Amino acid sequence: MIPMMNSQLTITSLMKHAEQINGAVEVVSVTADNPRHRYTYRDAFARVRQLANALSAIGLEQGDTVATFAWNDYRHLEIYYAVSCSGMVCHTINPRLFPEQIEYIVNHGRDKWIFVDLTMVPLLESLHHVMPEVKGFVVMTDQAHMPDTSLPNAHCYEALIAEHTAEFEWPDLDENTPSALCYTSGTTGNPKGVMYTHRSTLLHCYASIAPDVFGLSVTDVALPIVPMFHVNGWGLVYSAPMTGAKLVMPGPKMGCGETLCTLINEEKITVSAGVPTVWLALLDYLKKSGSTIESLNRLTVGGAACPFVIYDDFRTKYGVDVQQGWGMTEMNPLGTFNGNAPETVSALPADQYDKMRLKQGRPVFGVEMKIVDADNKALPWDGISAGAVKVRGPWIINEYYNYDGQTLDDDGWFETGDVACIDEYGYMQITDRVKDVIKSGGEWISSIELENCAVNHPKVAEAAVVGMPHPTWSERPLLLVILQEGESLTREEMLGWFEGKVAKWWIPEECLFVDTLPHTATGKLSKKDIRAQYADFSWPS
Amino acid sequence: MIPMMNSQLTITSLMKHAEQINGAVEVVSVTADNPRHRYTYRDAFARVRQLANALSAIGLEQGDTVATFAWNDYRHLEIYYAVSCSGMVCHTINPRLFPEQIEYIVNHGRDKWIFVDLTMVPLLESLHHVMPEVKGFVVMTDQAHMPDTSLPNAHCYEALIAEHTAEFEWPDLDENTPSALCYTSGTTGNPKGVMYTHRSTLLHCYASIAPDVFGLSVTDVALPIVPMFHVNGWGLVYSAPMTGAKLVMPGPKMGCGETLCTLINEEKITVSAGVPTVWLALLDYLKKSGSTIESLNRLTVGGAACPFVIYDDFRTKYGVDVQQGWGMTEMNPLGTFNGNAPETVSALPADQYDKMRLKQGRPVFGVEMKIVDADNKALPWDGISAGAVKVRGPWIINEYYNYDGQTLDDDGWFETGDVACIDEYGYMQITDRVKDVIKSGGEWISSIELENCAVNHPKVAEAAVVGMPHPTWSERPLLLVILQEGESLTREEMLGWFEGKVAKWWIPEECLFVDTLPHTATGKLSKKDIRAQYADFSWPS
Ligand SMILES: Nc1ncnc2c1ncn2[C@@H]1O[C@H](COP(=O)(O)O)[C@@H](O)[C@H]1O
Repeated sequence: MIPMMNSQLTITSLMKHAEQINGAVEVVSVTADNPRHRYTYRDAFARVRQLANALSAIGLEQGDTVATFAWNDYRHLEIYYAVSCSGMVCHTINPRLFPEQIEYIVNHGRDKWIFVDLTMVPLLESLHHVMPEVKGFVVMTDQAHMPDTSLPNAHCYEALIAEHTAEFEWPDLDENTPSALCYTSGTTGNPKGVMYTHRSTLLHCYASIAPDVFGLSVTDVALPIVPMFHVNGWGLVYSAPMTGAKLVMPGPKMGCGETLCTLINEEKITVSAGVPTVWLALLDYLKKSGSTIESLNRLTVGGAACPFVIYDDFRTKYGVDVQQGWGMTEMNPLGTFNGNAPETVSALPADQYDKMRLKQGRPVFGVEMKIVDADNKALPWDGISAGAVKVRGPWIINEYYNYDGQTLDDDGWFETGDVACIDEYGYMQITDRVKDVIKSGGEWISSIELENCAVNHPKVAEAAVVGMPHPTWSERPLLLVILQEGESLTREEMLGWFEGKVAKWWIPEECLFVDTLPHTATGKLSKKDIRAQYADFSWPS
Repeated sequence: MIPMMNSQLTITSLMKHAEQINGAVEVVSVTADNPRHRYTYRDAFARVRQLANALSAIGLEQGDTVATFAWNDYRHLEIYYAVSCSGMVCHTINPRLFPEQIEYIVNHGRDKWIFVDLTMVPLLESLHHVMPEVKGFVVMTDQAHMPDTSLPNAHCYEALIAEHTAEFEWPDLDENTPSALCYTSGTTGNPKGVMYTHRSTLLHCYASIAPDVFGLSVTDVALPIVPMFHVNGWGLVYSAPMTGAKLVMPGPKMGCGETLCTLINEEKITVSAGVPTVWLALLDYLKKSGSTIESLNRLTVGGAACPFVIYDDFRTKYGVDVQQGWGMTEMNPLGTFNGNAPETVSALPADQYDKMRLKQGRPVFGVEMKIVDADNKALPWDGISAGAVKVRGPWIINEYYNYDGQTLDDDGWFETGDVACIDEYGYMQITDRVKDVIKSGGEWISSIELENCAVNHPKVAEAAVVGMPHPTWSERPLLLVILQEGESLTREEMLGWFEGKVAKWWIPEECLFVDTLPHTATGKLSKKDIRAQYADFSWPS
C-alpha cells in the first residue's frame, strides 16, 4: 500500500503552479537589446512552451545538454525552464573563465547546442572551432539586432520561437532527473561538474524561501544580482515564480551601481542577493550620488565573507538588513544563513550581536553539518574549536559529473574545503580554507585570522600567511608583508604586533617584507603560488 | 550516476536539526498534572530517546501502531517523535468520537499500546474490554498523580521512561515509511484511516512555514490550539522545532478563553491556530474581561469557514491579522491559505479586499487543484463557476488505510467532497459540500449561500436548505426556517427576501417553518437527517 501520493518534486510542477497562481506578476529585465523589458510570468511560460517546441524541432532529446552563455534576463529564464522541464540539462557557463576552461567544460558537458547573449557572441566566435560536438548556436536577440556572425548554424532566438505554438505537453519526469549543470573552477586540476536534479532544486527552493532564510513572499520584488551562471542564481529564478515575487533581472549591468540603484527605486525592489563586490559598487554609487534605496529592506551577501562596512553601512545609512549566506556550487548553493536571530542572540549587547551577524550563519534545515579534526573526529560546537566542514543533505552533491575521483568521504559526507568553528547557537564562522590552514603540532592555525591581524597594523598594506614545512611542528606560519608606501618596520616590530592579539603559538615564525604578492584571476591571494615561490625557504635556526 | 545525495526526508532529520540548532528554545505546556510545565527542545529530545528505549523494552517493533488519547502537551510531543522516529506509527485518536467509533478505529488501526492522558483514563476504562489486541496502557503522568485504574497492564509514563537512558540509535528510515495515522469521521459509513508518511510530513512542513503561509520563524512563539489528534495539529508540532519557534501547548484547556488569553500574554505568543469555535471563545473572553493580546500578530482559522466577526474583531480591536486555511485529514491538512495578498488584491478597495480575505485562500505550492463539473470537466477560474474540488500532491492521500473502496478517481485525483469556485487570482471559495449541493437543471446551487442569505433576515434564527427531488429540475432547494422567538413571517415574505440577493433560479422552491433542526455531534446541521426526515415531502403543485 502507498499511503500518500507519489507526486514528483519537479521544476515542471513549480512552473505550472507559478503560471496558474502567479501568472499576472511581472518579470522585468535589462538586456543587451532592450534597456527595460517587461512582461508577466504568464507571458514567460507561454514562450517557454514555444521554446520547448523549438528545442525538439532542432533535434534535441531528453537527456541532452544545452549550454547558456548569458546574463540574468527573461530569455535566460525561459531557457532554464524549457530545457529542464523538457527533461534536458541546462548547462550554465561562466563567460569569465579562461578560454581553455570554457573549451574543457563545453566538451566535458557534451553540450549539444549553445544559447548565447549578444554581448558574448565574439567570445564564442573565437572558441567554436574547439567545440566539435556543438551542433548549433542560438543568439538571444530579435531579428533587428541579429549580428552578422561567423558562428556556424547560428539562429536568432526570437525567430526560432516564433515558428512554434505555445501548446506543449510536458513530459512526466522522475524527481531525480538531472535538471542543470554547473562547473566549479577549482584552483587545481580541471573544472568539475555538479549536476542538479529536479528534486534537489525543489527542496532547495522550499528551504530557501523560509522566513529565516530569504523569506520570499508574494509581496516581495526580488533582484537577483548573483549571475544565473553561478549556481542557478542562488535559486531565485525558481523561488520567485514559486512564491509570486516580482522578478527583476539586471542583465549585463549587474556590476553597475547606478543601474542597480535605478532598478531598486523604479521597480521598488524589496530584496536582493549578490557577492560583496556588487554591494561595494552600490554603496560607492549611493555615497557619490546621494541617492537612497527606500524600498529595499534586506539583502543577501554570499560567495565570500561579508565585510563589516557592507553590513554596517547598509543598516545604519540605508535601513537595509544585510543577511549573509554561505554555500557553494556543490550545495545548490545554500548551507548556512544569517537572517532572523533567535532571542538568545538578538538579546546580546550591540557589539556582540554585530559579531554574530557577521558570521556565516546557521545551517538551513535540510543541511546536516559537522566540523572535524585531522583524524575526522567531530569537534564540539563551542565557537572556538575549528575544523574541516562536512555536510550532508538532499541538495548536496553525491558525485561530480563523469568524474573518476572520489566525491564523498568514506562515510558519505561531502568535505566542503572550508575550515570553520560553530558556536553554541549553531552559528558557523569560516576561519580558513582546508588547504590554507596551518597544521602546527597537530593543531590548526587560521591563515586568514593572522592576515586580518597583520593588515590591521597601520603600516601594513597587504599581508599573506602560509604554512611552511617545519622539522618540529610539521608546519609553522610564514608571514609575507607589503608595507604602505614610504613606511618601514622591523621583523621584531611586526611579529610583536601579534602579541596579545592571537594565541602565543599562533604568532608567525618568521616575517618577510616583499614588494608584490601573487593573485588569482579573480583577485584573491594565490596561496598556491606563494607556497611554490617560497619552496626553498628555510626557517632561521 | 546519482548526482545529488539521496538523503531521506524523515522526521528523524527534523528532530536532529531541532535539537542541534534550536535546543535552547523553550517548550511550555499546560497538563492535567501541572498548570505550567516548561523545558527546552533539548530536554524534550533527550526524553524522546528514553521513551524510544522504553517502546522497544515493552516489545514494540518497527511497523507497529501506538495510539494516543491525549491533549496538546509535551508528553504527547515526545510520543509523536519517539514513535514515528522508531519507525512505528503514531495513531492519534479523537476522544470526542462516539464509543463505537473509538472501538472501530482502535481495532482497525491494530493499535498495540495506548498512551492516555490522565483526564481520559475513565473513557478507556469503559472501553478497553472491546480492544482485544491492545497489550497495555501508559498513563501520561508521574507516580504522584498515577490513578488507581482498572486498565489492564497500566504503566506510569514517568516511571516507564525513568528506567531508560537517553542514548538511542535511531533507525535509518526510508522517507516513504508511515509515520502517523488519523481517522476521518465521515458522516456515512465507518471512519477511514489516513496514513501519513515521513516524506508527506516533511514536505508539508516546508510548505507550511513559507512566508505566505504560517510564516513560521525562530522569532515566533507558537500556540497550536488545534488538537494534536486532529491532523497532527496542522503540523505545528513539527514546524515549530524545525524553525526554532518557541512552542506553547494548552493541554486540556484549549477551549478556555481565559487560559488562552493568559498564555498569550504570559508567554508572548505571536502566532496561533485553531477552529472558529476557539476564536469565538477567546473574543468573548476578551470582550468580557477587557484584556488585550499585544504580542499576537496573526492567527490561523481553519476546519470550517471563518465568520466575518472573527476576521474583523481581531483585526480592528486587537491588531491581529486573521488568516484562513482550508484543508482536511486527507491533505495533511493544508490545501489553501489566505495570508499575504498579491498586489492585485491588496490594492483593492477595503470592502472587496475583505471579501477576498474571507475566502479560503490560494493553493499552497505542492497542492495541484482543479474544480470540475458533473462530467468531470475542468471549470474556469472565474470566481463564479462552482465545481467539485479535486487535488493532487505529495501530501495528499493515495489510499485509505486497509480500505476496500477506491480512494482516488480514475485519473488519480482525490475528490475532496467540497464544492468551490476559484477566482482569477487563485483564491478558492468553498460554496458547499458535494453531497449537499443542489443539482437543479444541470446547474449547481449552493445550499450554504442560501442558508447564509436566509439567516441574514432579522426575523430568522436558523435556516437549512436541502435539495429535494423534483420531476422537472432533478432537484430544487427546500428551505427550512426557525424563526426568532415571538416573530412571524409568511412563506411569500420569506421567499421574497431572496429576490435581488441571489440568481432568480436559486430562490428556494418552497419554505417550511419548523421548531427544531437536527444537528451532528459536532454541532453542524445534519443535512442527511433533514433529507431523511422530509423524504415524503412533495412540492406544491
Ligand atoms: N477554511 C475552511 N472553510 C470551510 N470549510 C473548511 C475549511 N477548512 C476545512 N473545512 C471543511 O472541513 C473538511 C475537512 O474536515 P477534516 O478532515 O475533519 O479536517 C473540509 O473538507 C471542509 O469541508
